Amino acid sequence: MPLKALVFDVFGTVVDWRSSIAREVHTFALKKGLAIDAYGFADEWRSCYGPNMDKVRRNNLAWINLDDLHRMALNRLLNSKRFSLNHMNMDEVDKKELNKAWHKLEPWSDSIIGLNRLKERFIIAPLSNGNISLMTNLSKYGQLPWDCILGAELAKHYKPDMEVYQSAIDILGIQPSEIMMVAAHLSDLYAARKLGMKTAFVYRPDEFGNDVSSIDVPDVVKDIVGEIDVVAKDMIDLSNQLHSKDMNNPDTYYNTS
Amino acid sequence: MPLKALVFDVFGTVVDWRSSIAREVHTFALKKGLAIDAYGFADEWRSCYGPNMDKVRRNNLAWINLDDLHRMALNRLLNSKRFSLNHMNMDEVDKKELNKAWHKLEPWSDSIIGLNRLKERFIIAPLSNGNISLMTNLSKYGQLPWDCILGAELAKHYKPDMEVYQSAIDILGIQPSEIMMVAAHLSDLYAARKLGMKTAFVYRPDEFGNDVSSIDVPDVVKDIVGEIDVVAKDMIDLSNQLHSKDMNNPDTYYNTS
Repeated sequence: MPLKALVFDVFGTVVDWRSSIAREVHTFALKKGLAIDAYGFADEWRSCYGPNMDKVRRNNLAWINLDDLHRMALNRLLNSKRFSLNHMNMDEVDKKELNKAWHKLEPWSDSIIGLNRLKERFIIAPLSNGNISLMTNLSKYGQLPWDCILGAELAKHYKPDMEVYQSAIDILGIQPSEIMMVAAHLSDLYAARKLGMKTAFVYRPDEFGNDVSSIDVPDVVKDIVGEIDVVAKDMIDLSNQLHSKDMNNPDTYYNTS
Repeated sequence: MPLKALVFDVFGTVVDWRSSIAREVHTFALKKGLAIDAYGFADEWRSCYGPNMDKVRRNNLAWINLDDLHRMALNRLLNSKRFSLNHMNMDEVDKKELNKAWHKLEPWSDSIIGLNRLKERFIIAPLSNGNISLMTNLSKYGQLPWDCILGAELAKHYKPDMEVYQSAIDILGIQPSEIMMVAAHLSDLYAARKLGMKTAFVYRPDEFGNDVSSIDVPDVVKDIVGEIDVVAKDMIDLSNQLHSKDMNNPDTYYNTS
């Protein structure tokens, strides 16, 4: 089966959410005349991500999109005494504006070149937990050249629920082995692999800043050889590897007709 | 309310389905060593479009996507004595290949320039009855620079069912008046207008070749003045009008922040 489509995790894999959120929080606090630990705020905001999605995954919360989950988390942070941004100095317009920080995330420096090269040969689409409008705005903001937008909102499930990966297969109307999941997180790739999708791991050692304990990076490449089809140091490397004639299974990667 | 997004009808409005289908059918017949009335075949194929969608609209047929509706129609044509392409000289691989003709439709000559200009200022997305993979392949084939893909498959309804227009509003997460429906067919625009969306009519007098009786073009522009927000002769004209400072309501169209 030739490879026809690449689907991407976005937060951490394609864009640098941490620096971008810290920048937006810092700018916002400045406008309010407040000093803030902006990276701490970003980390705390993101730390609500898994637990809040788990509520949806376990049916403790009806389906709501990621914008709304980000807002739930923001409300909690604004009740926290840890940060100077709190309900006292925020009105509803402020909160909506700050929540939109997640729509303005900077791509990693290699992402745009790599994606444009990959687009020459493959269908490229996000398969993110972010909702379609969030992905669309990220793409406008960062010039991400997606062919279409797939992801959690179309499946009404959050990754790594299998329904999300299955929705990509169904909507694209191609075989699982014709689709490659690209992510900086192994859990995402292992889930995709269960359905027969191909997998590519991209190293993003800076995703969590200096907090190496949070980084989902295998100690040595050989740990995942045989489990993951391609290991790439960034998107340009991924495009080089998928265009290269020296891959182990060249027939798998060249013919996309 | 500033205008933020433009959503487009595709078949007839953005791409020239008739010439493209005729070209694909002609090429296919040549490979089989057959002569065929390729435009007649294209017209007949398209004529099944409305009636087959009506079966879904009236719940006489469970939701199936447009690829499958095209295939249903193709099967009927292949049983017809009118054309030389029939079940006798077609196997399953042939039929699948021919059905994919709908994934290779040529954009009208102004579409790509116009869409790229509009994309600078607005979110642009198809709101078509075509499924996501069909739209994605059309975009790969014709270099259509969509920001995201909306449409019937996301609503599990066919236009002009209101659910399709409502799904665009809900997914983009903006107000109806911030979205403009662009189409060469008034029925599409009137449906969008009922929900409070803005509307733009684009003339496509060649959509049905010389069969003027099929053309959904108002006799005189003044017939639709007051009902339709913008009347454009093509996509470039539309982009000029939406960028122009001379529009009646400039505030509506310049600020997309």
